[in-house]
Amino acid sequence: MATFFPSFYEQIISLEDQVKFKERFQITEGSYNNVIISGMGGSGVAGRLLAGFYENMPVITVDSYDLPKYAGKKSFFVAISYSGNTEETISVAKQAKERGIEVHAITSGGVLSEIADRVISVPKGLQPRQAIGFLLIPLINTLVGNVDIEGIISSVRKAREKEKEIETMARKIASDGKIPYIITWGKQAGISYRAKTQFNEISKIFAISSNLSEQNHNEIVPMLENRDMSDKFIYIFAGRINNERIRKRVDFMTKDQNLEIMKINPVCNNEIEESFYLIHYFDLLTYYVAKNRNVDPESVKSIENLKKFLSS
Amino acid sequence: MATFFPSFYEQIISLEDQVKFKERFQITEGSYNNVIISGMGGSGVAGRLLAGFYENMPVITVDSYDLPKYAGKKSFFVAISYSGNTEETISVAKQAKERGIEVHAITSGGVLSEIADRVISVPKGLQPRQAIGFLLIPLINTLVGNVDIEGIISSVRKAREKEKEIETMARKIASDGKIPYIITWGKQAGISYRAKTQFNEISKIFAISSNLSEQNHNEIVPMLENRDMSDKFIYIFAGRINNERIRKRVDFMTKDQNLEIMKINPVCNNEIEESFYLIHYFDLLTYYVAKNRNVDPESVKSIENLKKFLSS
Repeated sequence: MATFFPSFYEQIISLEDQVKFKERFQITEGSYNNVIISGMGGSGVAGRLLAGFYENMPVITVDSYDLPKYAGKKSFFVAISYSGNTEETISVAKQAKERGIEVHAITSGGVLSEIADRVISVPKGLQPRQAIGFLLIPLINTLVGNVDIEGIISSVRKAREKEKEIETMARKIASDGKIPYIITWGKQAGISYRAKTQFNEISKIFAISSNLSEQNHNEIVPMLENRDMSDKFIYIFAGRINNERIRKRVDFMTKDQNLEIMKINPVCNNEIEESFYLIHYFDLLTYYVAKNRNVDPESVKSIENLKKFLSS
Repeated sequence: MATFFPSFYEQIISLEDQVKFKERFQITEGSYNNVIISGMGGSGVAGRLLAGFYENMPVITVDSYDLPKYAGKKSFFVAISYSGNTEETISVAKQAKERGIEVHAITSGGVLSEIADRVISVPKGLQPRQAIGFLLIPLINTLVGNVDIEGIISSVRKAREKEKEIETMARKIASDGKIPYIITWGKQAGISYRAKTQFNEISKIFAISSNLSEQNHNEIVPMLENRDMSDKFIYIFAGRINNERIRKRVDFMTKDQNLEIMKINPVCNNEIEESFYLIHYFDLLTYYVAKNRNVDPESVKSIENLKKFLSS
């Protein structure tokens, strides 16, 4: 596959092309008890998102150096590292090999492509976090199957149609200097985490990832009772509300308790389209926050410096 | 078992007695492929912590209304709700029953004790979050077994010996008005989440739960590159550092990048003792932060108001 070096904005809009990626692993139905996906940061997010729409087996995401003790031949194991050189992911993949577990890898190269038994190669030249389509689609093709790609493309386009609205929201976030507090629920739980990491890496700001209804059992306390601190945050609810209890919980916070919460309502037909809509929406939002803050959306100097320090 | 209504401080120190709780479920080795633990907030934390030291099977924690589709007779299912009336947990337990899955419950009563097939009854009269020993120990007794309870008690006592140091740290957190950012790693990953929820409910302040090395792939960017925003947080590293890569990562942040990080070094012999040391340490810390902020550590008005709103 060709190597390309598009601008960061082009990397964001390339999601529309990435979802056409047709690669998949072979998997025999009924051979496995669980799915283990090893990956860090932007690569690890793919596993977290998959867990939202694949429910035939438990999906365990490993974001550390060690493969869980229970992992064995009944585990469908996938290591995801865009660069192929992430030290934690290589460590986990090596442990899998030692245990005789087949290593499936999604990567653009590196050490991982050498040690894996099966490799899905993704194009080089992107920031890892902007390769999410390439990293996630093979998991969907392998495990979920029969996905309406045209529907996903359409949702991504519909998110981009909101670009003006997104720019306005970005200006507000950048000018207020507040910390985005992103709320999702149900199958979109991984989206708030993805959004948080994009605010971190692209906009260079903190963000909180939160889910309903779990949030209502703890963080709702300072959110409503400590308004001085609560004012440091800007609340964003992302996702459709097609559950009456969730709707009532949101009504309590906004209508009964007068908390201002911005809402992102995805235009979509199902939960996978919803995820891609929200991925694209937040990619654009975090990009425009970076632009408004006059920071480079592409560079992540601290992570580069850390890598140098670790290898010294 | 007797019902008692100790003061909130007594509830915190009752952890020492709670760990002596001997109840356990019967479980036949090899009958299950996974462990599913349903629970919200302070009750759900027990499942998250268990996942740190039980690795014979995947442990999936469910903090929503729905039982995953894959759950079946090969799933060892436990529903945890201190009150027994948590709507999400009851919803999940009912779905399990409909699917013919045996429902194990850890609860002080309520609807859950009526619908469950096997019940471990815990004493009434505590705040759910201060019943963590009663909720967690039966999971450990059932799945981990052969735990040195005297060692755990000793660790809890050693944490309390730090009460003066904890009070000092609490004064600093309360007076600065900063947001605690708690960093853990490896098997203590659930502890940063527990600490966050205790800051929320007891101290009525926000907190961020974070883990190494995942944090180093995203949130390290604003942490080091956006010092204005980074200054809104107070960084706390909790846990032993007996891994050279983790040590080097901490050294990078503190020594190379001059970030101030407070450290909590548990006195303990193994990871279960470490967890209990840290649970107790943070329970005392969040309590003293509440006292310094002149807020009631016991009440959680917003959650009570929400419950009223939901049932109206």
